[in-house]
Amino acid sequence: MPVQSVIQDCLDRIRPVSSAAADAARLRLDRLTKPLGSLGRLEDVMVRVAAMVASPAPRLEQPTCLVFAADHGVAAEGVSAYPQEVTAQMAVNIASGGAVSSVLARQHQVRLQVVDVGVTAPLRHPGILNRRVRAGTRNFTAGPAMTRSEAEAAVCTGIDTVNQAHAAGCGLLLVGEMGIANTTPAAAMAAVLGQWPVSQVVGTGTGISKAQWEHKVHVIERALDVNHPDAEDPWQVLAALGGLEIAALGGAILAAAAHRMPVLLDGLMTGVAALWACRLAADVKDYLLASHVSAEPGHRMVISALGLQPLLDLELRLGEASGALLALPLLLAAQRVFTETATFEEAGVSEQA
Amino acid sequence: MPVQSVIQDCLDRIRPVSSAAADAARLRLDRLTKPLGSLGRLEDVMVRVAAMVASPAPRLEQPTCLVFAADHGVAAEGVSAYPQEVTAQMAVNIASGGAVSSVLARQHQVRLQVVDVGVTAPLRHPGILNRRVRAGTRNFTAGPAMTRSEAEAAVCTGIDTVNQAHAAGCGLLLVGEMGIANTTPAAAMAAVLGQWPVSQVVGTGTGISKAQWEHKVHVIERALDVNHPDAEDPWQVLAALGGLEIAALGGAILAAAAHRMPVLLDGLMTGVAALWACRLAADVKDYLLASHVSAEPGHRMVISALGLQPLLDLELRLGEASGALLALPLLLAAQRVFTETATFEEAGVSEQA
Repeated sequence: MPVQSVIQDCLDRIRPVSSAAADAARLRLDRLTKPLGSLGRLEDVMVRVAAMVASPAPRLEQPTCLVFAADHGVAAEGVSAYPQEVTAQMAVNIASGGAVSSVLARQHQVRLQVVDVGVTAPLRHPGILNRRVRAGTRNFTAGPAMTRSEAEAAVCTGIDTVNQAHAAGCGLLLVGEMGIANTTPAAAMAAVLGQWPVSQVVGTGTGISKAQWEHKVHVIERALDVNHPDAEDPWQVLAALGGLEIAALGGAILAAAAHRMPVLLDGLMTGVAALWACRLAADVKDYLLASHVSAEPGHRMVISALGLQPLLDLELRLGEASGALLALPLLLAAQRVFTETATFEEAGVSEQA
Repeated sequence: MPVQSVIQDCLDRIRPVSSAAADAARLRLDRLTKPLGSLGRLEDVMVRVAAMVASPAPRLEQPTCLVFAADHGVAAEGVSAYPQEVTAQMAVNIASGGAVSSVLARQHQVRLQVVDVGVTAPLRHPGILNRRVRAGTRNFTAGPAMTRSEAEAAVCTGIDTVNQAHAAGCGLLLVGEMGIANTTPAAAMAAVLGQWPVSQVVGTGTGISKAQWEHKVHVIERALDVNHPDAEDPWQVLAALGGLEIAALGGAILAAAAHRMPVLLDGLMTGVAALWACRLAADVKDYLLASHVSAEPGHRMVISALGLQPLLDLELRLGEASGALLALPLLLAAQRVFTETATFEEAGVSEQA
C-alpha cells in the first residue's frame, strides 16, 4: 500500500474510547474489598484503560516496547552534551542488552524492539530493525529537517511497526527513542504546537551548561525564523522541525489508537509526538498514558496540554523508553488488582455504613 | 529471652550506614551507559541502599512483606467509615489472597505474612501468624491505650518476626498494617512526636465526612488531654496513644535496621512507627525508604520529618502495605539497572565531551 494510503487508513480507523466500558469498570472498582477510591489515581488509570480497550475487564497482554532511533542534522550546532556517534552506539547497546532500557525490559519480560529510522552511521545488528528513511535529518537552522515525503515515510514506519506488533498479540504499547540532539527538534515542535515561548520549553537535555542552554534556545529560534512553521499544519511542522524518530513515534501512536491499544508514553520526544498525533486525530489523546514527567521543562507543559497526569515524577531524563518501562508495573498492577481482588460479597467483608 | 532484653539487644545492634559503600556506588553509577544523573531520584535510592547494606553492589533478595493487624478501642468513638469487624475480615481476606495487597504480592512474587498482634475477634487462619498481645487496645479517650508492658510485647513481636525473616534470607522488608480506626492513634502519635497541631495531621482515613473529621480531631484532642503524652518519652507516647500493630511496626523497623535491611514503608501508620523508632535510635532513619506519600495530610509531614522523598505520589490511602508493594518494582529496577547496565568501556560508547 502506498505511504499516504497507509496513513489515511490508520487515521480512518481511530474511534472514540468507550464510555460504557468506563462506567462498567467504575462500578466494579467500587465492589472491590478496599475503601472507596483508596487506590487514588490508579483507579482513574483502570477506568481509562477500560475505556480504551472497550472492555470492563481489560487485559494488557504482551506489552511491547518500541525504541525508534535516528540522528539530527542540528547536532552540528553543538546542542548536545554527547557526540552524534552515540546514537548508533547506544542503539547497539540497547539491542545487545546493555542499556538501562534493556535491563528494565528484561526485568519486566517485555519485548523491546529498536527501529533504525535514520541513524547516520550504518547499523547492522540482528536486534535492530532497519527502516532507514535517510541518514539523519538536515540541519533545520538552514531549512526544513525533512521533506514532506520523508516525514510521511517515517510516520508510516511507526504505523507499520505497530500494525505488526498488534498482529503478533501486543495489547499495550510502550514507546521511546534514541537520538543525540533530539530534545532540540522536540522543543522546537513543542514551542510551535503549544504556542509556548522557546525559552520555556527548552531544557538541559542529557546535561548541558547554562551557556549551552542559551545557545540551544538561540538555535531553535533561528530554526523557527528560517522555517516559518504553521501551527495549523502539523505535517509542515513535523517536516520542518521534527526528527525521523519523532515522526515514527507519531505514526506508532496513531496506529496504537487505531487498534484501541493503550500507549504508555516516555519523555519529551514521545510527548511531542503524541501532541502532533492529536492534531491529526483528536481522539488519540484518550489512548495515551503518561508514565512520568521528566526533568525537561517542556515535558510537563506537553503532558498538561495532553490532559494527562504522570504516574511517576522522579526527575528522570534518560529516554529510550526507560520511564515507560519503569511505570509499566504500576499499570500491570492496576490491571491485576482490577481483575483479581475479591468483592465485598465474595470475601464476606462488611461495607461502609 | 525476656521482652526487654530482645528490645535492648536489637537497639544495641543498630549501626550507622556505610558512607564508603555509598561513595563506591556513586562512582559506579557514573560509569554506566546513560547520561550522568539521568535516572534522577532513583540514583539517590541506589546510593542510599548501597549505604544501608554496606555493599557497593547491593542485592535485595527475598523481599518480605509483613502486615500487622490489630484493633483499636477508640473505634467505639465512631472515628472510622467502616465497622470494627472489618479488621478481622480483611486480615482473612489478605491471608486468603483476595485483598489488593494479596494481588500485588502475587504479582511481584513477594512473601506476604499477616501477623495478628491484637485483633478483637478471634482469628484462626493458617495464613495468619497468631501473636496476639490483647484483644485490641483500650479506648484512649479514657486512659492509656496500652500498658507499657503490652506495648513492649507488641514491639517485641515486630522484632521477632523480622529476625525470623532475616534468618530465612530476607534482604528487603516491606511493612503494612490493617486496623479499623488506626489513622486516629497514628495521627495522635504524629501530633505529639512531631509537635504538630492535631487538625493539621488528621485526615479522612478510609473516607469520613467533614463532620466526622471534626469529631475525629476532637476525639484526639480529648485523648491528649487525658493522657498527658510526653514527647521526650517515646515509650509513654506509644503506650498511651498507639496501637498494637503500630508498636509491632516500630519493632519491625528497629529490627530491620539492626540487620542492615532496607525498609520500604507504606502509609501513615508505618511512617509514624518509623518516626517512633527513630526516637529510640536516630540511625534508623537512614535505613528507611518511602514508597509513597498518601492522601492523609499527616503522612506528608511525617515523611518530611524523616527526611525522606516518596517514590510515588498517587493519592493512595489503602494501607495493608499496598503502597510499598506498588513501589517495589522501582526499587528492584534500580538495583537491576545498577548491577546489569553496561559501562561506557564495556559497551564502547563515547562519553560526554
